[in-house]
Amino acid sequence: MKNLISMRDLSKKEILDLMKLAEKIETGKLKPDMSDKLGALIFYEPSTRTQFSFATAMKRLGGQTVTMRGTGSTSVKKGESFADTLQTIAQYTDIIVIRTAVEGSARYASEVVDIPVVNAGDGANQHPTQALLDLYSIVKTQGTLENLTIGVVGDLKFGRTVHSLVQALSDFNPKLYFASPSHLKMPPYILDDLREKNIEFEEIRDIEKIIDKLDLMYVTRIQKERFTDPEDYEKVKGSYIINKNMLKSVKSNFKVLHPLPRVDEIATDVDDTPYAYYFQQAKNGVFMRQAIFTTLLGSAE
Amino acid sequence: MKNLISMRDLSKKEILDLMKLAEKIETGKLKPDMSDKLGALIFYEPSTRTQFSFATAMKRLGGQTVTMRGTGSTSVKKGESFADTLQTIAQYTDIIVIRTAVEGSARYASEVVDIPVVNAGDGANQHPTQALLDLYSIVKTQGTLENLTIGVVGDLKFGRTVHSLVQALSDFNPKLYFASPSHLKMPPYILDDLREKNIEFEEIRDIEKIIDKLDLMYVTRIQKERFTDPEDYEKVKGSYIINKNMLKSVKSNFKVLHPLPRVDEIATDVDDTPYAYYFQQAKNGVFMRQAIFTTLLGSAE
Amino acid sequence: MKNLISMRDLSKKEILDLMKLAEKIETGKLKPDMSDKLGALIFYEPSTRTQFSFATAMKRLGGQTVTMRGTGSTSVKKGESFADTLQTIAQYTDIIVIRTAVEGSARYASEVVDIPVVNAGDGANQHPTQALLDLYSIVKTQGTLENLTIGVVGDLKFGRTVHSLVQALSDFNPKLYFASPSHLKMPPYILDDLREKNIEFEEIRDIEKIIDKLDLMYVTRIQKERFTDPEDYEKVKGSYIINKNMLKSVKSNFKVLHPLPRVDEIATDVDDTPYAYYFQQAKNGVFMRQAIFTTLLGSAE
Repeated sequence: MKNLISMRDLSKKEILDLMKLAEKIETGKLKPDMSDKLGALIFYEPSTRTQFSFATAMKRLGGQTVTMRGTGSTSVKKGESFADTLQTIAQYTDIIVIRTAVEGSARYASEVVDIPVVNAGDGANQHPTQALLDLYSIVKTQGTLENLTIGVVGDLKFGRTVHSLVQALSDFNPKLYFASPSHLKMPPYILDDLREKNIEFEEIRDIEKIIDKLDLMYVTRIQKERFTDPEDYEKVKGSYIINKNMLKSVKSNFKVLHPLPRVDEIATDVDDTPYAYYFQQAKNGVFMRQAIFTTLLGSAE
Repeated sequence: MKNLISMRDLSKKEILDLMKLAEKIETGKLKPDMSDKLGALIFYEPSTRTQFSFATAMKRLGGQTVTMRGTGSTSVKKGESFADTLQTIAQYTDIIVIRTAVEGSARYASEVVDIPVVNAGDGANQHPTQALLDLYSIVKTQGTLENLTIGVVGDLKFGRTVHSLVQALSDFNPKLYFASPSHLKMPPYILDDLREKNIEFEEIRDIEKIIDKLDLMYVTRIQKERFTDPEDYEKVKGSYIINKNMLKSVKSNFKVLHPLPRVDEIATDVDDTPYAYYFQQAKNGVFMRQAIFTTLLGSAE
Repeated sequence: MKNLISMRDLSKKEILDLMKLAEKIETGKLKPDMSDKLGALIFYEPSTRTQFSFATAMKRLGGQTVTMRGTGSTSVKKGESFADTLQTIAQYTDIIVIRTAVEGSARYASEVVDIPVVNAGDGANQHPTQALLDLYSIVKTQGTLENLTIGVVGDLKFGRTVHSLVQALSDFNPKLYFASPSHLKMPPYILDDLREKNIEFEEIRDIEKIIDKLDLMYVTRIQKERFTDPEDYEKVKGSYIINKNMLKSVKSNFKVLHPLPRVDEIATDVDDTPYAYYFQQAKNGVFMRQAIFTTLLGSAE
């Protein structure tokens, strides 16, 4: 592993190795020392949460960060090419974490510079560190990634998070239920992928009917902006809100995950139940990103 | 002490303990180690100076910070609740320093998260770390907080700094003189408080008449925006400007304090006198904030 | 050396000492420890690249930074004077790096505060750390600063970088060729300076004719905004573009330097030749800035 650009680049073994490494770091069995490391956080598209998580991961290992936000790039204003900006930053730092609105830009960055590149989200395409922290959260709560029954709820069309997650899960024989408004369904190319790999899945309307079968439910935000008619949004949004009342007879190992930020798709009365796992999931992201830094910077020994 | 939200939460003993702790840190008798600590600086309302002071305090103890500025909060734009933002940040960091324009928001934050919260100013309400650094500056220059004669000058109506300071001083039997434009007087509820505690105070017009009695004078900025008629501002502002000429026969222990930034309420010819203490006061803020971090993070042993 | 404001303040010996120090730091012979140092990066005029370079220099020596960007200075908005802002920041930090659009402001800053000040560019005036890293790049590639034949190409009128560099080189007996559009020629006061010091120089039209004589070529960006008639820009710009084709018979020690960012004045086909040195030059800037911090903060022993 030289870079982390897409979940598609990772073998099943590499995924499992990252899980084990994150667990070792979380439990203190491994203490990578990054005190001589400097990470560049380049966020052309802002994301406070993701940026904080990467900065926390680096700083808690003793390393440091320099940050460039979308509006901060004066060189770009002066007409510098993206490749030159990257090559210059690569002179200063040991690793580049990059988030942009443009699909493929993280891959391009990794081809331009000699230091490792981590994709922190390139448009609607990939967000692999989110997928990996989701998998890590699943392992921690279920003890395994294999043979789980998982509900995926919300905007399945534009949610890059769920795309990466479903692709990653397809190596672990899940049973999947997809619940979304009709015009925000999982894209056909992903369903085709699943069919090819013989993964069992079902597109459903009513999550309540199947909730008791689930080991976990992965909920994402439905963005109002995705609806041309605001009334349509008001009509459907209620169908994809999880509340405490729905959780009466779920399995004891059941957990609700969410990449955050949430708006109202999980009622706050769920927060105090033992099924809420989304804030812990955010914390898991720090350990997973530490595992990624450790792997890419070769600091594991 | 789990949080620092308001001076009203602090007992006299807790205040004095913080003074002693700041002194130990300043003199190097105590060297708290924050190398495993990460502080979140959340500044919804910007304040370069306060933010620098907190960052300096943490970094000079070996710790690190992550910073979110008002405009930086992309999660808020996506519709996330204040509580969710705080709970997520609490997954990453060990302590939250928060400044907002909304009264009560720091208290609310402390109720939402499990990690310590420091109020760095919530609207016109409280700014307890400023009050504590002011007290520390008084102790350092006067040797005590007890029985001092203090002039308080400027905008006494809207200045949260002077409100917190006067409340804190009321435990130490001061004699107080208040000088302000007539429509920017100290609010009645604070005067009532002082009367109840039998604190001697006087509202005066002319600071020059009483300046020789003072152990110290605390000056604040009068904001032009507080006047509906700009001419009124021009009329009164001269009456509340301290200059070198006025300091001819002050007591030898006399000091001028100011929370900064100043505009013109202290003439620059005062800067070179032995009575100017406002820049040292800013420096004292770092030691006081280190004492606060040390207390809240339990790093004193 | 108490501050670094202008190349004119530096003696030949001081320049050579900084070269040696940068080399010791780069090769690891000297490891200055800045773990108790905090640097203020004050960038009233934004410059991502320069800011990153200074932050990298400090952080890779174990030190920390606090950063104030142009729009971030809330105290300025509140009416605080430049002197007060500086004096306050000097209470918190050990060194101030300052960039402004106003000539002379770095000098003024150094007169106001007691801690060292580094000029990171004051308008069209000086940018001494850039000049020093340019000299360091010359030493590294040529083995010496003495008796070199150097082409200087681009906007020689407004380019503060080339002004500082040429002034600095004038202590080392170079032979200089200046190539620029006719209205962007080297200012007469600099040419007079060179004549006075008996430095050989020539203003030329066609760089190709003399390129084989050069030990190195220093290229700068020609800003479109400098032309009143856009057609004039289109006419001349081609004459000052360096491409691979022009480098066929250059000397083996020949290098192309550029302060970056470049736009199109160096074709990207030059990047893969052994003559391209501009990205390494950016990296050299970190070592030079570490040498400057080390000298000014007295951490060399």
